[in-house]
Amino acid sequence: MNHEATTPCLLHIDTSVSPPGESVSRRLTALFADCWRRSRGAAGHRYRYRDLAAEPVPYVTADYARFGYRVERHGTVPVDQVAGLVGDAADAGVWRVTLPLVEEVLAADILLLGVPMYNLTVPAALLAWIDRISFPGALLDPETGAGRLRDKQVVVVSARGGGYGPGAPREGLDFQVPYLRGYFTDRGVPEEQLHFVTAELTRAWDVPTMAPLRSLAADSEAAARQAVTELADRLAAGEREEAARYAV
Amino acid sequence: MNHEATTPCLLHIDTSVSPPGESVSRRLTALFADCWRRSRGAAGHRYRYRDLAAEPVPYVTADYARFGYRVERHGTVPVDQVAGLVGDAADAGVWRVTLPLVEEVLAADILLLGVPMYNLTVPAALLAWIDRISFPGALLDPETGAGRLRDKQVVVVSARGGGYGPGAPREGLDFQVPYLRGYFTDRGVPEEQLHFVTAELTRAWDVPTMAPLRSLAADSEAAARQAVTELADRLAAGEREEAARYAV
Repeated sequence: MNHEATTPCLLHIDTSVSPPGESVSRRLTALFADCWRRSRGAAGHRYRYRDLAAEPVPYVTADYARFGYRVERHGTVPVDQVAGLVGDAADAGVWRVTLPLVEEVLAADILLLGVPMYNLTVPAALLAWIDRISFPGALLDPETGAGRLRDKQVVVVSARGGGYGPGAPREGLDFQVPYLRGYFTDRGVPEEQLHFVTAELTRAWDVPTMAPLRSLAADSEAAARQAVTELADRLAAGEREEAARYAV
Repeated sequence: MNHEATTPCLLHIDTSVSPPGESVSRRLTALFADCWRRSRGAAGHRYRYRDLAAEPVPYVTADYARFGYRVERHGTVPVDQVAGLVGDAADAGVWRVTLPLVEEVLAADILLLGVPMYNLTVPAALLAWIDRISFPGALLDPETGAGRLRDKQVVVVSARGGGYGPGAPREGLDFQVPYLRGYFTDRGVPEEQLHFVTAELTRAWDVPTMAPLRSLAADSEAAARQAVTELADRLAAGEREEAARYAV
């Protein structure tokens, strides 16, 4: 087995439109990535970064749908054979944008997503990325039909301006975390590999009427920092154990 | 009162990337619009159309967030006074894209949204539009703080490839209709003014394994056609009554 294939890869994706200094989700994903890399230490790692706010993925289009539906009619087509079905410049354009995103996800062992809540749900730019990686068949094993995300760890670091936790008046209005849980579960990620860390009340620092909530906001971010640190160490250690098993 | 202000306005928005002939949501919104206009008849109407797939609204950006947060610190700023807070070219660029979308919504009496389900939720392009119309303060009454959508009728025509209705195995995976219900309710639209019509199993026509579901899919679309027709007539009649009251 070559080194490349066995060295775990972290794909780190940020989606907040706020700059690093002002974005709670960006601070927390950066902390996770730092801890994980440090914890991997001499055991090695691979790391990829994508900023969907700075470099958004184009919305899916009529061309995307047309090509996707046509590929789907051939059953589950292996990703490396989709290019063979490209029929015209429109198909080629769709696949040129889509393939690198799919390959990046398939090559990752950990998906780390930094996700602020915008209007009760995830950023539009994250949905556009989800639409791309969900190209028909791309996340399915062509042999078994099983979801190709089933071996990945998925870490969602969410931030929201208000409070949506259990018992909060706005609890039923959270379409951010439950949506991502639904999407990744539907794609075959087992519950024990799906990790959510959430910081709440992040707008307390700049909305005057929320000022009384600042100490709660600070507590929430501190708890989230501890949670991502522990999770990063735990996932890095799990990978070291797995590598040791393979090495026997 | 001038004619313009009292003639009801339908804002019709489509979001499907599929062309009109292949899109169930587009067929259904077109049917609603036709019925409503016919039912209005000599009573008159205004009509605006926007296709978010053909002409997508740009994703919100760091500039959008920066300007929005700054406006928000002034309290609820009336939409026509936001331009006075524009400080630089970046702010101006944000507001040039955002203002027409906000004004279009505020001018409408009925919002008609055609919404396919993509990856369990709404199209990214619809979210980007929602992010724009939700510019801080834009949908609030500066005097009372009440939601300015509270007098509107909102008609969501949704289509989804599979079955997500009550009792379906995938019921818990619908983040399309519940999300839009949550968003508009949170914006002050009363339940009796929030109308959902849904056609299911739309992929039965092109996914071979779903072929046995075609008669159910046809039934679902037929029921949705009847529901939008009745709803369009009912809303057109309600508006005629209201106009008659004002005319007394």
